[in-house]
Amino acid sequence: MISLVKIGGNVVDDSTALERFCREFAALPGPKVLVHGGGVRASQVQKALGQEPVKIEGRRVTDARTLEVVTMVYAGWCNKDIVARLQHYGCNAIGLAGCDGSVITARRRAPKTLSDGVTKVDFGFVGDVTPTSVDKALVLRLLDAGLTPVFSAINHDGAGQLLNTNADTMAAAISVALGAKLFYCFEKNGVLCTPDDEDSVVPRLDPAGYARLKADCIITEGMIPKLDNAFQALRDGAAGVVIRSARGLTQPGGTELTL
Amino acid sequence: MISLVKIGGNVVDDSTALERFCREFAALPGPKVLVHGGGVRASQVQKALGQEPVKIEGRRVTDARTLEVVTMVYAGWCNKDIVARLQHYGCNAIGLAGCDGSVITARRRAPKTLSDGVTKVDFGFVGDVTPTSVDKALVLRLLDAGLTPVFSAINHDGAGQLLNTNADTMAAAISVALGAKLFYCFEKNGVLCTPDDEDSVVPRLDPAGYARLKADCIITEGMIPKLDNAFQALRDGAAGVVIRSARGLTQPGGTELTL
Repeated sequence: MISLVKIGGNVVDDSTALERFCREFAALPGPKVLVHGGGVRASQVQKALGQEPVKIEGRRVTDARTLEVVTMVYAGWCNKDIVARLQHYGCNAIGLAGCDGSVITARRRAPKTLSDGVTKVDFGFVGDVTPTSVDKALVLRLLDAGLTPVFSAINHDGAGQLLNTNADTMAAAISVALGAKLFYCFEKNGVLCTPDDEDSVVPRLDPAGYARLKADCIITEGMIPKLDNAFQALRDGAAGVVIRSARGLTQPGGTELTL
Repeated sequence: MISLVKIGGNVVDDSTALERFCREFAALPGPKVLVHGGGVRASQVQKALGQEPVKIEGRRVTDARTLEVVTMVYAGWCNKDIVARLQHYGCNAIGLAGCDGSVITARRRAPKTLSDGVTKVDFGFVGDVTPTSVDKALVLRLLDAGLTPVFSAINHDGAGQLLNTNADTMAAAISVALGAKLFYCFEKNGVLCTPDDEDSVVPRLDPAGYARLKADCIITEGMIPKLDNAFQALRDGAAGVVIRSARGLTQPGGTELTL
């Protein structure tokens, strides 16, 4: 089975954490794929270039200048830094943006009505992906050749336009397309039944349990879109989904979602 | 025969020229490889980030912060922008830095004595490549799969370190490794026997003719390392070398080197 690991800024933007992660990811047995974010560094570079990062409901508004920065940071520095580190640990990684071999084609997001039901926002050069956006045959060919694809969340529309994509959604789409087991890594050890107690990881969570934890306000804001996304991936055909910390990746742990 | 095209900043840093180039490159028949520079944009980003670009004898001194910028600009923005444009024109491009699939492993440059014979300079995170640095089998496998490799001049040392590489040298090394025909594109139509007269292109140039043009000061400074490099590639096994403009790439033109 293919393992698909998603890491975010808490790993990518911390050189020590990233080095540890790369060593552990390289040691994971079997075919594998990595999807990474890198948002903190992108905001830093934007600010250094005199741009003001704009986020609405957690999503970055991406004008032409922002697109250039996120492409530089995600597909350039973060991606190649990760690939070079993985190569050092014996993992034959290949960095990809969606335009590479047209492996992922995104659709530019139409102006979106916000949760207030009124305000319409054009997120700019932002692209959404679904499992059918992924050229599964190409990913499998790379895996068969012994390569480990490392995806930044920069895709294209097939008509020459690069598009910034949410890395969580992208990881879910690829795991469904491949029927892979998705490891969603974030800053905690898993879904916690006592917030702030890292030892209170819920080992398994089904939709009813998820609804209860939401009703009890144990699972809140930032986690909700992540878990919605994750359950959807499981329903759509991912072989499994685990919410966990990137630390100790070769060891069991985290919260396994079930239907 | 494989065509290897090298373009520099005069194409990469000019959106109109780049669009035209991508259209023409996509139309080139047969298997092909692209190597690109992008130095002007890198210097602009360095300056915007408050860094002062340092070049010695035409080569960029690359400290850790500079390495991050050139990796962002070359392997990130320039590379993915080119790949997305090529995809639009029906060329199934795949962007690569040397770390990707470890396709090119560079050796970090030892501190170098300058042309004054005295001053030693450490160029920092700069890597040199030779034809044996190139994983020829991987490049051929990509070409066989119908993909067109697009290389930025960022490589790695295999031990986790990215290295900035001269794009001209890299193009020469890849063309020798593949036995490809090398098209060195620059701002003029070819080697000119009357400087500034773009219609005075020397159609063929051998080492004796090159020596005469140097003695007559027709070929000067910037062109000398480029031509030395090009003749060396031809001696080392490139199938041919043409010095030309990127404009009208699908048409004959430029200066063909002979031995």
